[in-house]
Amino acid sequence: MAAPQFSVFIATSLDGFIAGPGDDLDFLKAVESPPEDYGYAKFAASVDALLMGRRTYDKVVAMGEWFYGDKPVYVVTNRPGTSTHGEKFVSGTPKELAGQLEGAGHRRVYLDGGNLIRQFLAEGLVTDLTVSLIPVLLGSGIPLFGGTGAPCELSFDSADSYPTGLVQLRYRVKH
Amino acid sequence: MAAPQFSVFIATSLDGFIAGPGDDLDFLKAVESPPEDYGYAKFAASVDALLMGRRTYDKVVAMGEWFYGDKPVYVVTNRPGTSTHGEKFVSGTPKELAGQLEGAGHRRVYLDGGNLIRQFLAEGLVTDLTVSLIPVLLGSGIPLFGGTGAPCELSFDSADSYPTGLVQLRYRVKH
Repeated sequence: MAAPQFSVFIATSLDGFIAGPGDDLDFLKAVESPPEDYGYAKFAASVDALLMGRRTYDKVVAMGEWFYGDKPVYVVTNRPGTSTHGEKFVSGTPKELAGQLEGAGHRRVYLDGGNLIRQFLAEGLVTDLTVSLIPVLLGSGIPLFGGTGAPCELSFDSADSYPTGLVQLRYRVKH
Repeated sequence: MAAPQFSVFIATSLDGFIAGPGDDLDFLKAVESPPEDYGYAKFAASVDALLMGRRTYDKVVAMGEWFYGDKPVYVVTNRPGTSTHGEKFVSGTPKELAGQLEGAGHRRVYLDGGNLIRQFLAEGLVTDLTVSLIPVLLGSGIPLFGGTGAPCELSFDSADSYPTGLVQLRYRVKH
């Protein structure tokens, strides 16, 4: 057994926000261009579980759509929740959570949510980051990195730009 | 006469810092790869003046090297300064400064410094942004955008990645 990979796949404004004020995700609409999915389906197929923060989870639930099929979903929270799609509510430090997911046999985990991503980065537990930059400055909102983190060296992997102006950047975390 | 274009050409960490704690610029060394200049000389040749914030100016002076040849340099400050290369110390709102530079006949101005860039963005006075992303998360430092700004729609222009892992993104500001 080995610790699972933790992979980030997230969209931000050029100024680094994953949501505007009030958790507003309207800025993502400017790049919606079906059937283009910016590699999401391929990425989703490459993970065997999801670990997300409570704020992200609550936002997903409020959207009324479940994006994760029957993949195991773990929600990190200290508050009670009602499981509607088999998701599990878990708590612990990043290392404890990584151990728990390793114990469950997971190999690659989709890590979602700004707080959780920062915590896992600070513990050196993130394997790779795919960041899709939306061509807008939001000016305020929920930051992805937010200046509360630890330094972390990255290895650039690849980048693609799309006709919508979205630029997707892929990095591996150096350990 | 028309208002000059104000153009940003700046490097940031992936988490949006233009300098680390204590104005540390060491993170830029990882991508130094002469004679590659990431388009700096071409950009510098395209502007006929520079407008920079005092903090940026003081950092440049402390480096002991003058990067701007005999191009007119304007330093926005309310504190006295000693001109060593003909630079002028100016003050005013972004609109007043733009008027002053228009009056001096400038057509394209290199706008430098986080505070000044944010102020000019908020006033809709920035024409275009070239942002070079360095493959590192600094975790803290001096932010470029910093979440204190106004929303601003961008039009993606082009992107290039380099063997050092630097990714350069070019946007125009929608007005």
